[in-house]
Amino acid sequence: MTIQIRIERTTAPKPRPQASELGFGKYFTDHMFIVDYAEGKGWHDARIVPYQPITLDPAAKVFHYGQTIFEGLKAYRTETGQIALFRPDMNMKRLNRSNDRMSIPAIEEELGLEALRQLVLIDKDWIPDAPETSLYVRPFVIATEAALGVSPSKQYQFIIIMSPVGSYYAEGIKPVSIYVESEYVRAVAGGVGHVKTAGNYAAGLKAQEGATEQGCAQVLWLDGVHRKYVEEVGSMNVFFRLGNKIVTPALTGSLLSGITRDSVIHLLRHWGLEVEERLISIDEVTQAQKDGSLKEMFGTGTAAVISPVGSLYWQGEKLTIGDGSTGELTLRVYETMTGIQTGRIEDPFGWRVALD
Amino acid sequence: MTIQIRIERTTAPKPRPQASELGFGKYFTDHMFIVDYAEGKGWHDARIVPYQPITLDPAAKVFHYGQTIFEGLKAYRTETGQIALFRPDMNMKRLNRSNDRMSIPAIEEELGLEALRQLVLIDKDWIPDAPETSLYVRPFVIATEAALGVSPSKQYQFIIIMSPVGSYYAEGIKPVSIYVESEYVRAVAGGVGHVKTAGNYAAGLKAQEGATEQGCAQVLWLDGVHRKYVEEVGSMNVFFRLGNKIVTPALTGSLLSGITRDSVIHLLRHWGLEVEERLISIDEVTQAQKDGSLKEMFGTGTAAVISPVGSLYWQGEKLTIGDGSTGELTLRVYETMTGIQTGRIEDPFGWRVALD
Repeated sequence: MTIQIRIERTTAPKPRPQASELGFGKYFTDHMFIVDYAEGKGWHDARIVPYQPITLDPAAKVFHYGQTIFEGLKAYRTETGQIALFRPDMNMKRLNRSNDRMSIPAIEEELGLEALRQLVLIDKDWIPDAPETSLYVRPFVIATEAALGVSPSKQYQFIIIMSPVGSYYAEGIKPVSIYVESEYVRAVAGGVGHVKTAGNYAAGLKAQEGATEQGCAQVLWLDGVHRKYVEEVGSMNVFFRLGNKIVTPALTGSLLSGITRDSVIHLLRHWGLEVEERLISIDEVTQAQKDGSLKEMFGTGTAAVISPVGSLYWQGEKLTIGDGSTGELTLRVYETMTGIQTGRIEDPFGWRVALD
Repeated sequence: MTIQIRIERTTAPKPRPQASELGFGKYFTDHMFIVDYAEGKGWHDARIVPYQPITLDPAAKVFHYGQTIFEGLKAYRTETGQIALFRPDMNMKRLNRSNDRMSIPAIEEELGLEALRQLVLIDKDWIPDAPETSLYVRPFVIATEAALGVSPSKQYQFIIIMSPVGSYYAEGIKPVSIYVESEYVRAVAGGVGHVKTAGNYAAGLKAQEGATEQGCAQVLWLDGVHRKYVEEVGSMNVFFRLGNKIVTPALTGSLLSGITRDSVIHLLRHWGLEVEERLISIDEVTQAQKDGSLKEMFGTGTAAVISPVGSLYWQGEKLTIGDGSTGELTLRVYETMTGIQTGRIEDPFGWRVALD
């Protein structure tokens, strides 16, 4: 590979937090990756430097017009001591789909992957080794040109930072309550809901506050046109087990094409199960809950991997899914996915990419 | 007023650009206003300091989850030498509506107005005096907490920067061509299209690129549900003169409540004209163009004030509005609005707020 990444190592390594203190995205490692973009010059000056503040003009476009995208993935220390990423090529492909939608210049996939590899290896001692901990990796692009006209920026930075994160389930995998949102809408086809851009997340905060008030952990988003088709759970994709079929919302242009979602679909089909990607309305879900055919429901995403749903809160009613505990298939998916990620079990798909 | 704003003046004033070089949002004045927010402490340490870069942790929430809002208004040097803002109270009210939607703590209106007053007066020599130039004022809030969880930030900065801007119409007011967008959607009811948050603008860049390729200056957005009701033109509100009635899209929750829009509605009614705020479909617009009842069309916004539309590009057809030149009513609205703003004519509405 001919990609040149300049490396400046820290002279003041930070103390590392205890596994019990980790949480999510609170601590950051000793180094970060940066590459600059300037119109006419392209992406240039790729470097790994000590983790440090970003200094921007207050007129930088990211502050005003939100031209920014991000990715999220995890690095694991496997049971054999290897360091591995989970399907990082998928993140780089999606990053460039996000870039395209947000009028940000593409980033060579090889550069992104090599940056991930070198950065994770430099800070490999930051990968926690307690069960179900990992190193969360956050690549992102920000528009840095200092100009207030509404037009694509002529300057960008692509940055990667990393955070050691704790087990999502401190006391074992546990079902959550979900609030079906009927007032707020996350995204609509023709918009940007299918890409990972900052504005999608800010737009969801208000609904999340409402869900929390109702004692729910997350929001279930319905589509913005008919206000009835299920889209996502919080910032996760969602799966329903209806009898022996598994149904997940089709990628209609307003929901994110999750890498965990794609992996779970592959895994279920690999097991010989029938998976339907299609429209599924909240009426179909609640009807299936009432007639007993809704056996299980779970969310998929990088942070939690698999998040079982124990109940739905819809139109003032609490609907329990199955017996309210983590379903049998949900648990099997969770164990298999985390097993593949951490090297606890064999990876028949070539998803685990060893870095060293 | 008991509001305390600490002032640190620059010791290195910058050279001021020539009126001919100004453009929009390219140059910034010598000072900026900042006030910090921390959970439990509220907004604190209001200060005017030399214009300077912002330094943020790379994990600051604004970069990842887009929790940010802004405003835009103009300061004018009136013909009698006074310095004035146009309806700044409306900006502060809308800023707090935006804050509420984006889960950002409210900012005391009096603090915002006093900050505007003191900052504009400190940099008053930056207000250009060539005809139709002004000082563009950009208040904005960014989420600064360094944490990757998707939740409202616990820290913010409210900042005001200012930029001397040139005449929007260097060669006199001139109609533009508008591309009616059928693929991309700006916003949907239940989302955030009605508030001034960064993500709305990034989401529109791709459509704008398509419009430019078709030789059009801006995009006309249609609603995201029925894909037929007119919403906004680029980042402006839009008005149609249909016979002797004026129609502007109703505030259905997906379009911005423009301050220029509100002022133009008041002005037209003050003149005894009939203004309807209602749904208006692209079919109604194109039908009215064909039968000759569509006499004029214009956009309204802080930057251009009034932007006449000369033609629409819709389904491969170019539809000329009226005779393609600036309509009679459009010109009258433009002259009156800019006249009130700059003090060239009397202000019967109390919109012009003198600062000195």
